[in-house]
Amino acid sequence: MSSKQGIPSRSENYSEWYNELVVRAGMAEHSSVAGCMVIKPHGYALWENMQRALDDMFKATGHVNAYFPMFVPKSFLAKEAEHVEGFAKECAVVTHYRLKLDPAAGGLIVDPEAKLEEELILRPTSETVIWNTYSRWIQSYRDLPLLINQWANIVRWEMRPRLFLRTREFLWQEGHTAHATYEEAEEEAARIHEVYRRFAEDWMAVPVVKGRKTEVEKFAGADHTYTIEALTQDLRAIQAGTSHHLGQNFAKAFDVTFQTQEGRLEYVYATSWGVSTRLIGTLVMAHSDDKGLVLPPRLAPIQIVIVPIGRDDASKQATLQAAERLAASLGEARYDGRPLRITVDKRTKESPGFKFNDWELKGACLRIELGPRDLESGSVVVARRDTFEKETVPTEDLAEALPAELAEMQSRLLRKALAFREANTHRVDRWEEFAERFAGEGGGGFVLAHWDGTPETEKEIAERTKATIRCIPLEPLHPDDEKPGACILTGRPSPRRVLFAKAY
Amino acid sequence: MSSKQGIPSRSENYSEWYNELVVRAGMAEHSSVAGCMVIKPHGYALWENMQRALDDMFKATGHVNAYFPMFVPKSFLAKEAEHVEGFAKECAVVTHYRLKLDPAAGGLIVDPEAKLEEELILRPTSETVIWNTYSRWIQSYRDLPLLINQWANIVRWEMRPRLFLRTREFLWQEGHTAHATYEEAEEEAARIHEVYRRFAEDWMAVPVVKGRKTEVEKFAGADHTYTIEALTQDLRAIQAGTSHHLGQNFAKAFDVTFQTQEGRLEYVYATSWGVSTRLIGTLVMAHSDDKGLVLPPRLAPIQIVIVPIGRDDASKQATLQAAERLAASLGEARYDGRPLRITVDKRTKESPGFKFNDWELKGACLRIELGPRDLESGSVVVARRDTFEKETVPTEDLAEALPAELAEMQSRLLRKALAFREANTHRVDRWEEFAERFAGEGGGGFVLAHWDGTPETEKEIAERTKATIRCIPLEPLHPDDEKPGACILTGRPSPRRVLFAKAY
Repeated sequence: MSSKQGIPSRSENYSEWYNELVVRAGMAEHSSVAGCMVIKPHGYALWENMQRALDDMFKATGHVNAYFPMFVPKSFLAKEAEHVEGFAKECAVVTHYRLKLDPAAGGLIVDPEAKLEEELILRPTSETVIWNTYSRWIQSYRDLPLLINQWANIVRWEMRPRLFLRTREFLWQEGHTAHATYEEAEEEAARIHEVYRRFAEDWMAVPVVKGRKTEVEKFAGADHTYTIEALTQDLRAIQAGTSHHLGQNFAKAFDVTFQTQEGRLEYVYATSWGVSTRLIGTLVMAHSDDKGLVLPPRLAPIQIVIVPIGRDDASKQATLQAAERLAASLGEARYDGRPLRITVDKRTKESPGFKFNDWELKGACLRIELGPRDLESGSVVVARRDTFEKETVPTEDLAEALPAELAEMQSRLLRKALAFREANTHRVDRWEEFAERFAGEGGGGFVLAHWDGTPETEKEIAERTKATIRCIPLEPLHPDDEKPGACILTGRPSPRRVLFAKAY
Repeated sequence: MSSKQGIPSRSENYSEWYNELVVRAGMAEHSSVAGCMVIKPHGYALWENMQRALDDMFKATGHVNAYFPMFVPKSFLAKEAEHVEGFAKECAVVTHYRLKLDPAAGGLIVDPEAKLEEELILRPTSETVIWNTYSRWIQSYRDLPLLINQWANIVRWEMRPRLFLRTREFLWQEGHTAHATYEEAEEEAARIHEVYRRFAEDWMAVPVVKGRKTEVEKFAGADHTYTIEALTQDLRAIQAGTSHHLGQNFAKAFDVTFQTQEGRLEYVYATSWGVSTRLIGTLVMAHSDDKGLVLPPRLAPIQIVIVPIGRDDASKQATLQAAERLAASLGEARYDGRPLRITVDKRTKESPGFKFNDWELKGACLRIELGPRDLESGSVVVARRDTFEKETVPTEDLAEALPAELAEMQSRLLRKALAFREANTHRVDRWEEFAERFAGEGGGGFVLAHWDGTPETEKEIAERTKATIRCIPLEPLHPDDEKPGACILTGRPSPRRVLFAKAY
């Protein structure tokens, strides 16, 4: 059964619930260009809030932004063997640089005389272009570390596109750093891994497991990859951010050496790391409900909506004016160090019920209902999006009460998501139970199980169950997880449990 | 003769001065991908400051941001006749979506089986993709106005690339708005035209002439185009921003109609408007000198650099610590409502002279010299980048003196540029004088002359002199400019003077 918003419920069809919610809440839609999305203003406003928070964190850890060309010469891609293997199959390729009128049929055709000497790939990631550049920028230990981030669009020719989760073009940030030693690069990869965890938990209110990817799952071209993994409401894992220690792989591919303080010539160590608009999909999946978006206050584009309510034109007019006065009077109030993001619903033709549904769909964190009686009593009704609790608050207390309510909502969302994850994290020791958990269409939650450490076993488990090793956790969710045991499939010795799940 | 920075002087070779300055100051460089640039951290920091100021202005005038696909199906481009005419010759075309290993030679080749059904153009501008989307978003007068901006990368296959001025990929913002009436669209185009003027003059300290483009020079697909035109130090015009009234051209091409309040079905009116990283080139050309960048304080990435000076290790250490204390003590100081952007030069091996040159090259607005004697006297030397004036200021006065000095520099840069423009703006009435002024390689300044209003005359003047009509000024630079006269070429009647110049 569909909700009032015309979206299926989560229990009915989680996948359709997500697709419809993203569209109807005004976050994004499929464009006429196959596989690509339009990020609509409401979705983009959320991305802007994410960008600002992340950008501040990157700058606070010493990084600066720059911009590199989106065109990757085909020969660059070929320089790092694993890297090309990982990306060649989904590359958009520019082959020509001019159109012309078809002299025969009259339409517009690609001018065959304007063929590029070398084809250009649209960046699926920028390691190759950036390390080609770094070869000019790095000569000496004094040029290191180089700590650069880029905000950019990315192209990967996905065959099963889904809004925010997998589209042929998406937006992201990619950090690319260069270091004198393996240890410094390791520190950097760990530092960003922790930045990503903090962003997920403190801003998105999404608890994540910090871990290391297996050899099978690591980034194509990395020495090793760190990841943060979240759990969705349909019990699947979603990879929310990765930080790669690239070793000297790209430095060797692009011949980037530096003179050490002692005068030796050595290859540079590298990291790269990124999060993308996929985080928006993660956020939607983490908190939203059958009525629409539930967004954490620190990132929500609309923290507070004031809905004036009136029976006749006169009372509509009076409450609208009062709503605007109220919004203005909150100008000095601060949540999270910033002015409150307040919207006044000025629509006059729609019913209060329609408007309440609409703001629940769009994920306004707090709704203030302001009717003629409230004007008289000097108080308003404040409704919480996540709990649907309503409270009557004296107008004069709002400047304090609203930020406190937002803070409480932010913290409750994380607590709730954490409780959900705990309830859906299982320690499994028998193969039958393991296979049973991942049988069928749905997800199976997080499963901590023993693994013998071989890619063969990892692949066989994935083939049999569609569950993959999301990560080898860095910090155990329970101390016993780090005790040795027997592999869930082969029974061979295993030093510790690893995290299995079906993944987005 | 080259300056100490290794860049030619402006008088020696203006073009080379610009190219070398942009590279050596760390703004940008040519990438290995032909025709594309890398925007280096110092240049990107300037762009970020520009973005923030512009974005705030767009939001203050009611606009929101969104993101549309960068891929334009070939058939979209063909829908608006003038538009395709304007852009078809410089389009990057994506034809395939996969690479594979060459079974014969072993290298990486484009997979011929992965050919797109329809070729995709990389957006040279987004009117077509956006109006295809708006056809889904707009049904009723209640959906209007639609006021959307996008920050994005753009591709135009330039054959004579120059850093920031013309590169095959560049960054910009593009506003795309939809309105119920011609008049509302006209108001919007004018509003943004004025936003651009304010940004150029109040932020960039670059005086501009506001005007309307001729039919020959207007945007491909516009009803009419507004422009702001600046004058460079080599006496050429540079178009710094344009705002287009698109009439119903794109609404008709993409069949975007709306139901009016009275129930009629009408085509929507449109505007589009943009500024790009070309503004960085404009800024460099406007104020910089033979020693390097001169940047307006409101946009400069580094407003203040503190250079500790010491003769021996002990005094180097003492002044470095004092410099860091000083920077920290200025934490509460504000210029333009924001914390000061202060850098402490921590390098210990370079001489003070080297550092002074380096910060002059990079365009730090104020340099604070902090030597052992200054420590004793409790004062420092403050040097202004634009005037090279030095002043001794008691340390305790800096929190007030520095913002005041930045404000005075910001205002002086505009005054100076305005005086330069006035000295190089000429009213010419005889053809010989006109032709003489634009003879030779250099620019000829701004020339206000009469024109008979025909495209034929406009084109013939351009052919003979390389000077084009930059705009028909909206506000006369002098009241007499709006008096009628005789066309500079044909002698036919002219209602008013228009602005001629050689353009970048």
